[in-house]
Amino acid sequence: MTGKERFLKACRGEAVARPPVWMMRQAGRTLPEYRALKEKYTFWELCRTPDLAAEVTMQPLRRFPVDAAIIFSDILVIPAAMGLEVEFTPAPHFATTVETRQDVDNLHGFDPLDSIGYVDAALRLVARELAEEKALLGFSGAPFTLACYMVDGTGRKGFHKTRAMMYGEPALFSALLDRLAQAVSGYLRMQCEAGITAFQLFDTWACDLSLAEYRRFVLPYVSRIFADLASLPVPGIYYANGVANLLPAFPDTGAAVAGVDWRISLAEVRRLLGEDVVVQGNLDPAVLGAPSEVIEERVFAMLDETGGRGHIVNLGHGLPPTTPVAGIEAFVAAVAKWAEER
Amino acid sequence: MTGKERFLKACRGEAVARPPVWMMRQAGRTLPEYRALKEKYTFWELCRTPDLAAEVTMQPLRRFPVDAAIIFSDILVIPAAMGLEVEFTPAPHFATTVETRQDVDNLHGFDPLDSIGYVDAALRLVARELAEEKALLGFSGAPFTLACYMVDGTGRKGFHKTRAMMYGEPALFSALLDRLAQAVSGYLRMQCEAGITAFQLFDTWACDLSLAEYRRFVLPYVSRIFADLASLPVPGIYYANGVANLLPAFPDTGAAVAGVDWRISLAEVRRLLGEDVVVQGNLDPAVLGAPSEVIEERVFAMLDETGGRGHIVNLGHGLPPTTPVAGIEAFVAAVAKWAEER
Repeated sequence: MTGKERFLKACRGEAVARPPVWMMRQAGRTLPEYRALKEKYTFWELCRTPDLAAEVTMQPLRRFPVDAAIIFSDILVIPAAMGLEVEFTPAPHFATTVETRQDVDNLHGFDPLDSIGYVDAALRLVARELAEEKALLGFSGAPFTLACYMVDGTGRKGFHKTRAMMYGEPALFSALLDRLAQAVSGYLRMQCEAGITAFQLFDTWACDLSLAEYRRFVLPYVSRIFADLASLPVPGIYYANGVANLLPAFPDTGAAVAGVDWRISLAEVRRLLGEDVVVQGNLDPAVLGAPSEVIEERVFAMLDETGGRGHIVNLGHGLPPTTPVAGIEAFVAAVAKWAEER
Repeated sequence: MTGKERFLKACRGEAVARPPVWMMRQAGRTLPEYRALKEKYTFWELCRTPDLAAEVTMQPLRRFPVDAAIIFSDILVIPAAMGLEVEFTPAPHFATTVETRQDVDNLHGFDPLDSIGYVDAALRLVARELAEEKALLGFSGAPFTLACYMVDGTGRKGFHKTRAMMYGEPALFSALLDRLAQAVSGYLRMQCEAGITAFQLFDTWACDLSLAEYRRFVLPYVSRIFADLASLPVPGIYYANGVANLLPAFPDTGAAVAGVDWRISLAEVRRLLGEDVVVQGNLDPAVLGAPSEVIEERVFAMLDETGGRGHIVNLGHGLPPTTPVAGIEAFVAAVAKWAEER
């Protein structure tokens, strides 16, 4: 069975001999061969040059027997395509932010192929190289999480400006989310047409909301995106960090797979959402800094919770840049060992 | 009724005509008169000079009719007293970190009066000025949260090194937590003797743990601290950010009051922990950047959830430095208005 078949079967909750495995942020910061490229090119140059983005996407697959490649890019390609200047220093910094109705109206409408065509081109290069062997994952930031960066202008300060707009000017904030939902749908549709196997919608900062605000300012836009893409044969994964509090709303998103962080056990997720929910995750990335026998023990415990069924093995958040390569190797190897030994 | 009486009655869950109110980080960054002092003194100078720390503590009480003063200090006074050099740039940065058993053994044992006597002196100055009018709050960082800074050396990078030690070397990590629990108990006891009305234990980063790890690496140390101080007539508040996932363990902490962030409603907290649990919180600090009618509406909704009974009104996290003073005024005024109108 190929990694791609394994991945798609897991997304449908079907039995597989070994659950598929990949890691959020597997392409990028952690690998020495990425850092070598980063000495020569800026982050935007790597994203916007299809050959380079494809190369960075493939780097982890040459080292680790993972089942999926995820395209090297950034969630902030959409705000950039909408006309906001974004620099990575290395944290993202916006030259201008969205504060008024006029600012929302001034955002560029765009055809994703025109504005973010470099992602389409990179995806096609990777799809050709992977052929049918591995799953190819596309992704986008979700509307609320993108709005956080566009209103606050930086990820460093807790997004108070964004939430002040949400509480104080809900109509303005909703207009921004509406524009973003439309953009995200179009962008993911382009990725589907470029040959991705599945996509992930990253809603990292939804964890800053209560369930009531989540239902008002996140769910309508996220569910619209999944509904827009529901007719395509490309399953969608919805990931939010610190998601325990928000899980009751997951069934309403329309996503095929619930991406979960490590603060809640997968057994608890299934108690909350039903035994048949397909989950992705959820080892604490910090575990990969521990000795390999500890990594193995933790991976085994996680897999014992799901029985490896309807489970895309992953971390609970992106790989930290400081992760030792040996820790990544031990993580991926432990999944295979668990499947052999069960 | 004085603010101090109101505060103590609320801690015991007794009826009050108006619930007490204060704000985490009310002393410091947000106020222009604080920033004026900060031009002349470093952060450590302000903390370590009793007259200045007392002055900063009193600044918000001259502006806002809050019921409590919280001593101006920092949770990192304990690591500093244990021999680790800490600078604020303005984020905390440690010159050396704790990595080995030897590093734990090398931490200084200390008598809090000798090493952090400046907090004792500042508390006595403020206690004299407040007389019996207002509650005076002491505080400390909790062992796990202090360990996060001592192992990682910075608060900026997600504390992966700390959790790698927790997973990989649990005996070493527990030895560090054990030393910290002892230090925190002694430090809080000193504050009780200096005349505080109540204390808050800040466990901000416990939110990075699952409930299983919380029960192993947080709860034993936190409960020991509350037990150590249980014979003193000084109620303890336990605050963790992002606490929804960890609330089932709250009754085992031994704290009198559950400090809660805004991601969970106080009604839900009472459904989980019982109608009699005393809560503190929990408005999203970002609300204070919205227009005053929105602040009032949100404060009213929060107070309607508890009926103002067994409720110390606060934000769900510290005041952001960018909060407009008018927003703080509207927050405090809304509490009084709710009590008058009900």
